[in-house]
Amino acid sequence: MHKEETVKTATFYHAGCPVCVEAERTIAESLDPAHYKVETVHLGEQKGRIAEAERAGVKSVPVLVVEGAPFHINFGAPLSALKG
Amino acid sequence: MHKEETVKTATFYHAGCPVCVEAERTIAESLDPAHYKVETVHLGEQKGRIAEAERAGVKSVPVLVVEGAPFHINFGAPLSALKG
Repeated sequence: MHKEETVKTATFYHAGCPVCVEAERTIAESLDPAHYKVETVHLGEQKGRIAEAERAGVKSVPVLVVEGAPFHINFGAPLSALKG
Repeated sequence: MHKEETVKTATFYHAGCPVCVEAERTIAESLDPAHYKVETVHLGEQKGRIAEAERAGVKSVPVLVVEGAPFHINFGAPLSALKG
């Protein structure tokens, strides 16, 4: 199942917070395009996508979800704070 | 100070734990080589480098330190557990 040559889709969920912006600039935008196609989702603006993040096991933002597995990067805000 | 064209040095600190291995495979090894040259350091085997990680603000592994700033990726083990 491990194909180095395949471009995977990764989703970077954030909430526009300073910690999120730093993670986006430093990590999400620096992933090798030969490995990942990165979609960026602002959960504060796209609340309809909170449920899918939650199903992937996302607890907080910023987070990069790769093949259904969440990689939380530092801590900006809990997912629960974005539901209001 | 923000040069997109410059290759930066990033240090990925880990402790060989399952969470660390996942983060290494998924993130550290997937960074764009045009952006980062990544050095990987196993702090369990190179305890002499724990102090430098601590000075960068590292609290736990796995973590990627970029230009002195730590990006903790999920949670494998606290830095304190590696000092023994």
